This record gives sequence, C-alpha cells and structure tokens, in this order.
Amino acid sequence: MRWSQTHIPTLRETPTEAEVVSHRLMLRAGLIRKLSSGTYSYLPLGMRSLLKVIGIIREEMNRAGGLEVLLPALQPAEIWKRSGRYALMGPEMIRFKDRHGKEMVLGPTHEEVITLLVSGEVRSYRDLPKNLYQIQVKFRDEPRPRFGVIRSSEFLMKDAYSFDRDEAGLAVSYQKMYGVYGRIFARCGLSAIPVEAETGVMGGKDSHEYMVPAATGEDVVIRCSGCGYAASKDKFLSNSTQTTGQSPSPEPKSSDPCPKCGKPIEVLSAIEVGHIFKLGTKYSSILEATFLDEGGKQKPFIMGCYGIGVTRILAAVVETHSDDSGIRWPVSIAPYPVVIVPINLAEPSTREAVESLYRELTQAGLEVLLDDREVSGGVKLKDADLIGFPIRILISEKTLQKSSIELKLRSETEPTLIERAQALPAVKKLLDKESLLVG
Amino acid sequence: MRWSQTHIPTLRETPTEAEVVSHRLMLRAGLIRKLSSGTYSYLPLGMRSLLKVIGIIREEMNRAGGLEVLLPALQPAEIWKRSGRYALMGPEMIRFKDRHGKEMVLGPTHEEVITLLVSGEVRSYRDLPKNLYQIQVKFRDEPRPRFGVIRSSEFLMKDAYSFDRDEAGLAVSYQKMYGVYGRIFARCGLSAIPVEAETGVMGGKDSHEYMVPAATGEDVVIRCSGCGYAASKDKFLSNSTQTTGQSPSPEPKSSDPCPKCGKPIEVLSAIEVGHIFKLGTKYSSILEATFLDEGGKQKPFIMGCYGIGVTRILAAVVETHSDDSGIRWPVSIAPYPVVIVPINLAEPSTREAVESLYRELTQAGLEVLLDDREVSGGVKLKDADLIGFPIRILISEKTLQKSSIELKLRSETEPTLIERAQALPAVKKLLDKESLLVG
Repeated sequence: MRWSQTHIPTLRETPTEAEVVSHRLMLRAGLIRKLSSGTYSYLPLGMRSLLKVIGIIREEMNRAGGLEVLLPALQPAEIWKRSGRYALMGPEMIRFKDRHGKEMVLGPTHEEVITLLVSGEVRSYRDLPKNLYQIQVKFRDEPRPRFGVIRSSEFLMKDAYSFDRDEAGLAVSYQKMYGVYGRIFARCGLSAIPVEAETGVMGGKDSHEYMVPAATGEDVVIRCSGCGYAASKDKFLSNSTQTTGQSPSPEPKSSDPCPKCGKPIEVLSAIEVGHIFKLGTKYSSILEATFLDEGGKQKPFIMGCYGIGVTRILAAVVETHSDDSGIRWPVSIAPYPVVIVPINLAEPSTREAVESLYRELTQAGLEVLLDDREVSGGVKLKDADLIGFPIRILISEKTLQKSSIELKLRSETEPTLIERAQALPAVKKLLDKESLLVG
Repeated sequence: MRWSQTHIPTLRETPTEAEVVSHRLMLRAGLIRKLSSGTYSYLPLGMRSLLKVIGIIREEMNRAGGLEVLLPALQPAEIWKRSGRYALMGPEMIRFKDRHGKEMVLGPTHEEVITLLVSGEVRSYRDLPKNLYQIQVKFRDEPRPRFGVIRSSEFLMKDAYSFDRDEAGLAVSYQKMYGVYGRIFARCGLSAIPVEAETGVMGGKDSHEYMVPAATGEDVVIRCSGCGYAASKDKFLSNSTQTTGQSPSPEPKSSDPCPKCGKPIEVLSAIEVGHIFKLGTKYSSILEATFLDEGGKQKPFIMGCYGIGVTRILAAVVETHSDDSGIRWPVSIAPYPVVIVPINLAEPSTREAVESLYRELTQAGLEVLLDDREVSGGVKLKDADLIGFPIRILISEKTLQKSSIELKLRSETEPTLIERAQALPAVKKLLDKESLLVG
C-alpha cells in the first residue's frame, strides 16, 4: 500500500483529552478518532490491526473446536426477566421500547440467548460437548467512558459458551479455553496473567480474569511470588476473609499476607483483557435447557462462558508496547509489518530503486507500506516511529551509492546496512525472528 | 469438519411462520434461528456462508482501493440534527437517551459520521479521491419484520463512502463501484440487475439499485427489452411523468410504455441487495467538510455512497438457488463445498475408506463436511440435499466393491461412479467448473 492512497492522519500534537499512553498514541498514530464520549471510529491502520487480532482469535477458537455463530445484539427484555438478570443489570445495559411498545435491550452478553438457542436443539449427551462463540459489537452505557477504547460505550467482544454433560466435561472445556486464551494473548504480544476472580453478576463457580500489568490499568491484581497465587482484588479480599476470619482492609497493600502461604503479596495495576467463568447450571436450570443423559433422564446443561475484549486488546498492546517515539507493534498485529521510507523520492534513481524494492517485497506476499508522501525525510522517520512498524527500510542516494538499503528494527536503536540484493531474505529473516518473540 | 462436532439442527417440518422459500430453507437447513420478531441468530453453517460473502466483499472493495474502517453504531442525535435528517428519519431509527440524558441513535447509515471524520483530516485535493468502507451491524425498528433475514431489525451492511474533488472524479468513483458491485454479486452467484433509482432520504442525484429478480421480491422493477431501460418503480413513475407530462398509474403493468423508447415494459418482482448514490455536496456542504483545491480555495467534498445488504445476500442466494429438495449453493459461498455421505459407517472397511478420503481431501485444503452421524443413509442424503452442498460424495460397501466412490453435483440429477484413486482430482475439477459458473 502507498501512503498517499490510504488515510493515515498522524498528529504532531498530543491530544489533551487523552490520559493514558495507548489513548494518546492511538490518536496520534491515526488508528482511531473520537466521535463522541465513549465512541470511536477505527481508521484504516487501526482496522488492519483489529482484523489481525480477530483473525488470531478466530484461528485459535476454531482450532480448539469452537463453532462461530452470530447472535442478535437486539434482544427482548423478556428473556432477561426470565433469567432474573433484568433487575440485576445496572444502567450500563441500554434499554428502550420498540415502535410497538415492546421492551428491548442491547445485549451486553448472551447467556440467555445462547441457552435458549441450544435448548431443544442439542438433545442428547451424545451431542456434547459444544462450544459456540461469536465476535460481536457490544454496547455499554458507561457512567464515565475513558482511556479511549479501553473503556468505551461500544466495543468488540469475543464471547464463547460451552455446554457439557457433567462437571468433569466442564472442567475439560474450561481448561481448553484456559489454554486457548494463553495462546491468543501471547500471539498478540501480550503478557496476560490469569488470576482467580469473583463471578459477580455472571454467577457460577470458578472464574479467571486475564490481566495485562500496566501502570495505568484500572484493575488491581494481587500476586504472591512465594506460592504463585494470583487473584483479582475482590477474590483476594474474599480469600483473605476466609483464611483469617476477619475482613481485611479494602485496599490491599504490598505488605499484606498471601491468603494461601502467608508471605507478603505484590499489588499490581492491570488491564483486564479476558474473563472465563464456570457457570454450571445457573442459566440452563432457570431457562429449562436440558438434554437426555445416558440413562434417559433430562438434565440441565453444565455451562461455561469465556469473554475477550477484542478492541481492548489493541489498546492493551499499545499501552504496553511503546517508547517516547511511539508504538512498537508486535509483527503479528502490526497494521503493516514493513515500512519503506525513501529519502528524496524526487530523485529518479531513488524512485526507481524504491519502486523495484516495493514490487519485490509485495510480490513475495509481504504487507508493505510505502511512504510516498512529498514530505521531508525527518517527518517520514518520525511518523514511522510513531506508528511503530516493526521493520523500517530506508533508501536514500547515500545507501544506493553503496548498492544498499538501511534496515532497522523498531525494537532496536541501530540500523544495519544491507546489500540491496539481500533485502528480501533479510526482511523475511527478521520477520520470522520478530514473530517468534510473540510465540 | 465432522457433522457430530458441529451444530446443524436440520428440520423435517416446514416452519409455519416462514412465508418465503429462503426463510423456510434457512430455518430447515439449520442456518438461522429466530430469537424474536425480526432478530435472528446465525448458526455455524449460516455463519460460514456469511463469512464467505464478507470475504468476497472485502476482497473486491480492497482491490478497488477501498479502505476498511469501523464506525460507531452508537451516534449522538446532535449530528443528525446538524444534517437535518433527525426529523426526516422515521421511527425505523432507534433513538434513546443515555444515562446522562443525552439523545443518542443507532445509526442506520453513516453519512454524518464519515463526513465529520474526513473533514479537517483530508485537507488537500492531492489527498483525493478516497473511498472508505465498513462492514457493520445495522439496526432498524421495522414496522413488520418478515421473510427471515430479508427484512429483519438487525442486519449486516457494507457501506462505502467516496470523496472526490469534482463531479468528474465522482463519476469515476461511482463507475468503479458500479463495476465492483457487479463482480461481488456475480461471485456470490446472484444475477443482480442494476436499475436506475430515486435517491429518497439519502439525497443526491444519480442512483442505482441492484435487484435480484425473485417471485417473492418486495420491490418492483421495470425493464424494457427494446432499449435496455431498467428502473425501480418510483424512478419509472417519475420518468413516465417527465416524458408524457401526465402522472401514470401508480401500479405499472406490463402493457405500459417504456418512457425511453415507448415499447411495452416488463414488470418484475425483485429483492434489493445493493444501492449506490451520487450524493454530491449534500452532506459536505451542510457539515462544512471542505478541502483546498488547486487554486487554494476551500471546496466541499463531492461524495458518493454505496450500500450492500450483506445478510440479505445470503437470503437472496437461497431464494433464487433452490429446488423441492432444498438449497443449491454456489461453490463460492457454500458453507462446505463438499459433503461425504457414508452409508453404514459401522462397517469397518467403509469407515476406513471414508476416513482415508476425508483425510486426503482436507489435507489438500478442501473444506469437507463428513456426515458421521449414526442415522440412516436416507436421512443423510435428504439432509445433504436440503443443505445443498455443491458436491456430494457417497461411499458404501457397494461403491467400494468396485473400488469406487459416487460423485454427484447438487445441480445435476445423476451421480457418476469414480475410481477411488481419482477422487481428489475429480472433485477439484468439479469445484473449478462450478466456481467458473458464478464468475
């Protein structure tokens, strides 16, 4: 792709409304733009990264036997009343009446819909287990949207739902998703820690949250280096109460004891990117969703549910992969893994060399952005760093005099001069190496 | 994929609520399920076909230089008031107040958002033309949802917006999309006729609708075989009024004269699957979205907009590709192009032969569904016809005695016996041949 033919409105100035690094950089690098409080448009570069995140999630979910579906966002309030959650959900759930006066909601999650969908159509224990998932836009009337797409009123979520015949089956389904989540986050370049969590309004028993440590994270994570214990704040507080028989201080400190081994805990801020739950029969019992077991008896499905904040992954990656100059994308979800920066494209021999390299790399199947703008080399280099392409190729009269190009990794400070003829194999080798870094 | 590991709840009975073929077959083949009036879930097979339609649209839009973005569905009412459309849009547009009392809408279309997004960021004539598109869920409070996903309250749409410096540029952008739309529908197996159309609430000048002739279509199309004139009913009525100076009968009949050449017209029912508009400066003027022209003057963008009903494509394909036994998918968007139907899988030599063929075809990169259910051969064959896989491979003791498999196209009545060793090349050849049929 040529820069002039896409739309990348980078910003010199730091937007004042942005409080955290990821929000600032996503605006400055031309990935997103704000429409109104809590709503954002994804521009072409942001969309490319988003599609890569979606591709990784889809691949890993399918590989684990997940079946992709698409469920309505528009849901009758009636099914939420049947499950008892209509009253439990706060003002975050958007509610309105349709033109016939029927109460509707924009579903913040889909336990009710999926349970009713599977009910009566998955009939026998022989049809189990099943894991159905979707990648869908969700709406949440946030009291105070902030941090760009980290806490926005509209966001993409991957939600999956497993159906099993018994607790042992659920344990297997849950463990499988536990593994899948680890791979998804690792492939996106995130170090996400699974921590024990409370189940809250979702109900059910076991639950893990996937937390990306970040100074600006809004969630608090407790870790113990002694026994490996890791929990959300709420879970830590309830664990501590159970262990000591006393309510601990509501704000954990690093000197507090681990509820498992008593050693001092570590308190981290983090961004939540995923959450998995063992629901058990909470929804299948109340919605009467049953299957026939081996003995011919009707039994409620044993369910699990598994969420990932798809758009939030982008923000979490930017939040944890940047330096003073800009973003440092992992290869796997970079909008383009390679940028070509020509210095003085007006010079005919430079133009010729640039076009020939661009042709060679794109024909080899690489996704390359060619910065063909009529701006100074300095501006191009600044923008390349700001957007954070993993590999930068610089071509100038100077490099061409040596029949060379200059190759630089965003993650390193020094460029390397490479013979022009070696450009493609060198870039491929670097891409492989960088890809390995994120698993 | 093995049938037992996905979720394909086919129905023997014809659902009584379904009035048209596509709705009936999409329910019976296990592609969709109704949640409530006008809202549908896409099950795994429906989702696979939907993802293929999306893939075709994305490929053709990108090839034509379209830039994919994602715009908020949640929009402040204020921008609709600024464009003057807040009052014009009927009760189809879903409106509500957020928790702070701010008026919000679920955007049925995105001219306001995209115009404001481009305004101030695409600054110069040198940055033009641009074509930004998205594939996004839309909400419409239908007075009477019907025909399954043909007229539903929630649906996927591809909407694109072009920005040009002058009318000549718009003409080029419009013509490009005209070509792209032809290719998209042809690749999906649809014979969509572009007809002249009125612009309605979108405003602007020229407009074409893409119409798929179908007995159950809700739109009326006028065609003249004499001069090639093709128009929507409204456009025909206004053309006729212009030509004759008199208002014609509001319900055109096949004996009415063509407004261009006077020969008798043909009146068809059709399903609208796309709509393209030359908007001109309607939105850019009122929202003050301008660029600097060559002479250094601020000028409003010359815009076009281009919509496709993504989910409706699926229904239109099923509506026009079926027989008494079920759907007849084009290869391009079939959930699986190939199904393997084993007769008596309990027989060890049959199972062995089936597994070896399944392995061979999937390893060759083909998408194959293996019907491994413990049901009769008759049930499997009926379901294969109902779902409408383009190629059916039958394996039984009888075919294996001849070291053969039975190959049958869904579009033909007679199967062919093929030597087992020739199975893969024969299937590949058929897939190529069938793919060619839809361009």
